[in-house]
Amino acid sequence: MAADPFDELLEKLRCLPGVGARSAQRMALHLLERDRDGGRRLARALETAMRDIQRCKQCRNFTASEICRVCSDDRRSPKTLCIVESPADVLAIEAATGYQGRYFVLLGRLSPLDGIGPKDLGLDELGRQLADGAVEEIVIATNTTVEGEATAHYLCEMAARHSVRVSRLAQGVPLGGELEHTDQSTLAHAFSSRQPMA
Amino acid sequence: MAADPFDELLEKLRCLPGVGARSAQRMALHLLERDRDGGRRLARALETAMRDIQRCKQCRNFTASEICRVCSDDRRSPKTLCIVESPADVLAIEAATGYQGRYFVLLGRLSPLDGIGPKDLGLDELGRQLADGAVEEIVIATNTTVEGEATAHYLCEMAARHSVRVSRLAQGVPLGGELEHTDQSTLAHAFSSRQPMA
Repeated sequence: MAADPFDELLEKLRCLPGVGARSAQRMALHLLERDRDGGRRLARALETAMRDIQRCKQCRNFTASEICRVCSDDRRSPKTLCIVESPADVLAIEAATGYQGRYFVLLGRLSPLDGIGPKDLGLDELGRQLADGAVEEIVIATNTTVEGEATAHYLCEMAARHSVRVSRLAQGVPLGGELEHTDQSTLAHAFSSRQPMA
Repeated sequence: MAADPFDELLEKLRCLPGVGARSAQRMALHLLERDRDGGRRLARALETAMRDIQRCKQCRNFTASEICRVCSDDRRSPKTLCIVESPADVLAIEAATGYQGRYFVLLGRLSPLDGIGPKDLGLDELGRQLADGAVEEIVIATNTTVEGEATAHYLCEMAARHSVRVSRLAQGVPLGGELEHTDQSTLAHAFSSRQPMA
């Protein structure tokens, strides 16, 4: 006998991050009681996205085309390349800054213990792009975790080999935060990297 | 030009209750990066559920069959009928109690201001079932809101017309709660409805 479609829906909803038994139930009942059309549209959107979204040939971000919207936008400068770990970082930078260059998405970070090396992050492709000579500066925006820092270090050496300028997002106390609630390592770093005021 | 499948997925995920822009993004990226099969299975489960799940002919609960599992379970007594507002209430009672009778799901509550009358809650069907004579007791488990209470009152009169016993879930201070944090109306009700101790 096939599984009950309701139980099946509850179970499958739980593959979404942050969705437990109770939220799955609330979602399923909401759709069934009040928004069946929404449920059908969501099913089609999921189907299409899972089938069509691949990685951009140039920057490895998710896209449904060969080349993503950012890479195919002529108004964006190919001279600056911002290197991030995940597509979420691209969205965050796009939302917060006025950055007008391009991106390169690692989809991970160097992690020898997990067997993740430069090739898995597309660094061979990045090397080809740097060798091309079009890129003048790379902005490293990997996470400030141990692995993110190691990746940043590796990228910095790559850039040096290709004589490309490198910068890294500024690190220090976050804006609007209170010093007493800033963690020790951030505070120590911000103190030792203090900047002269005009 | 068609909408971008990624944006489309973000928008459609937001029809789920409790899912805003940030969670939609987190869900979409999680599925794309780590669980495409899960995404496809969720799409199929949604499609099937939205198409196949209808109301049980007997108790109006959601089911993919003509008659739901509870109503078609011979071990459950047709003598007791628990009347609830929503399918979520059935799940809650099934999880918390050892109730072995059947249910009737109103899928709403009497609300003349919103134009919701007895027919919209299937009370004509409930009347037929009570007239049948198989039901000996109804347990009213509508919410303890104003509309839930009005609905309970209406159901009580229906039961009286068919000479069926009526009971209502006990109301009072919740278990494991502290008196000082119990709301005033609950406390007042619990005080005036105090029970003799053995």
